[in-house]
Amino acid sequence: MKEYIAKARVRYGETDKMGVVYHPNYFVYFEFGRTELMRATGLPYSDMEKQDSNLVVVEAHCKYIAGAVYDEEITIATHVAEIAKAKIQFNYKIRGKDDRILAEGYTVLACLDKNKKVARLPDSISSKLARYV
Amino acid sequence: MKEYIAKARVRYGETDKMGVVYHPNYFVYFEFGRTELMRATGLPYSDMEKQDSNLVVVEAHCKYIAGAVYDEEITIATHVAEIAKAKIQFNYKIRGKDDRILAEGYTVLACLDKNKKVARLPDSISSKLARYV
Amino acid sequence: MKEYIAKARVRYGETDKMGVVYHPNYFVYFEFGRTELMRATGLPYSDMEKQDSNLVVVEAHCKYIAGAVYDEEITIATHVAEIAKAKIQFNYKIRGKDDRILAEGYTVLACLDKNKKVARLPDSISSKLARYV
Amino acid sequence: MKEYIAKARVRYGETDKMGVVYHPNYFVYFEFGRTELMRATGLPYSDMEKQDSNLVVVEAHCKYIAGAVYDEEITIATHVAEIAKAKIQFNYKIRGKDDRILAEGYTVLACLDKNKKVARLPDSISSKLARYV
Repeated sequence: MKEYIAKARVRYGETDKMGVVYHPNYFVYFEFGRTELMRATGLPYSDMEKQDSNLVVVEAHCKYIAGAVYDEEITIATHVAEIAKAKIQFNYKIRGKDDRILAEGYTVLACLDKNKKVARLPDSISSKLARYV
Repeated sequence: MKEYIAKARVRYGETDKMGVVYHPNYFVYFEFGRTELMRATGLPYSDMEKQDSNLVVVEAHCKYIAGAVYDEEITIATHVAEIAKAKIQFNYKIRGKDDRILAEGYTVLACLDKNKKVARLPDSISSKLARYV
Repeated sequence: MKEYIAKARVRYGETDKMGVVYHPNYFVYFEFGRTELMRATGLPYSDMEKQDSNLVVVEAHCKYIAGAVYDEEITIATHVAEIAKAKIQFNYKIRGKDDRILAEGYTVLACLDKNKKVARLPDSISSKLARYV
Repeated sequence: MKEYIAKARVRYGETDKMGVVYHPNYFVYFEFGRTELMRATGLPYSDMEKQDSNLVVVEAHCKYIAGAVYDEEITIATHVAEIAKAKIQFNYKIRGKDDRILAEGYTVLACLDKNKKVARLPDSISSKLARYV
């Protein structure tokens, strides 16, 4: 299993009145993780979209273990859990200061063509993503 | 099973460049659903917080079925799937125009006391929530 | 001067760790105010977009007077401050509990045609908006 | 005039259905700019908060010149326009690809003490910020 490690820092507006990161924002971090993983393969997702292929989230899951605080440096470890014909599953683990685990989860993404129909994941993409399986 | 039906309308900023609601925002709608359910029981969550009890999301899951579009009127059907000693699970179903199902999911919330320690859910709260089991 | 009064309620995720609404979100409330004003004229902004006319924000300003808190009911009073050939200015005043003023500001919007070029505001729209000057 | 240059990249969720960054998010970028400026002075804002001093936005303004697109690398040039007894004004200029100007604006922040009362800006802070006047 090869993970891609992306680094981010918690922004003020990502927290809520409880003083920690508002829970839906972890899915924003997950997305950041897979975006940077894709960039690292040589195919940024923005280029994939320009080629009329879209990956849309069809399932998302997160377990919240500890709250990330404002300005905390976090790491998002992402790997490809499964590549199917028209779907990919990414798994994520977010760690904060002192390496404590903050959250873990997954998202399943379906590949859509330019008509927004489910389509076979192009080989050029699945072969690149295979590096992080 | 008794659901609470809350209504909302998709805001411009909730969409993304794909033209539909950005996926983490469905968890914002889920939260809106359970907040209105709690208000309907006579105990708004804001009052619960004033009494130093917090409900924090410890697990969240969503299946995305169709994309909600800008200005679409949506309904969030929420019910209490389980009440445990220190945890509650809410299940959600979001529908859009013509009653088409957009998303369904759940969140598990843990009860914390004023010291942010897991605590028994007060009877006054669990009895109220029992109406929507 | 005729204002349109829209009502909203502060959502949890709109607050930040300071315990009040995160400042950029007041522009989301402003947008909500002008959206509901437009709906009240009989021309929802979503219909205007379907007719290939867009209003894009070219200037935005806000003075923050007091912080809105979670679950607070707020009113957004919106009126049309100026209608020019290809621009509209909306002014806003947000009030909270006990009618205390929370924020006031304005946004200037330019009209764009389907090619995203600045265009004359259609008469059908400016005449409708004139009700709230 | 000495500016601090911070770099960011437009995230997917920061865009809206028009295909460019949703306008309130430029204030998030402004905040990112001043946060990184403060960190560069040796006093991260998160430390300032730990010392019970808060800077709250009391006025915000933005002129939108061109829309930033998904995954675009942007730079936020921030400088301190004015330091008064209990207030600071930061000015911002955001540039995108090929150095095109996307937005410019300012925010005025008031200094609050631990009781959330307006307070004199500590000398230790104003002297540090003076580097970017």
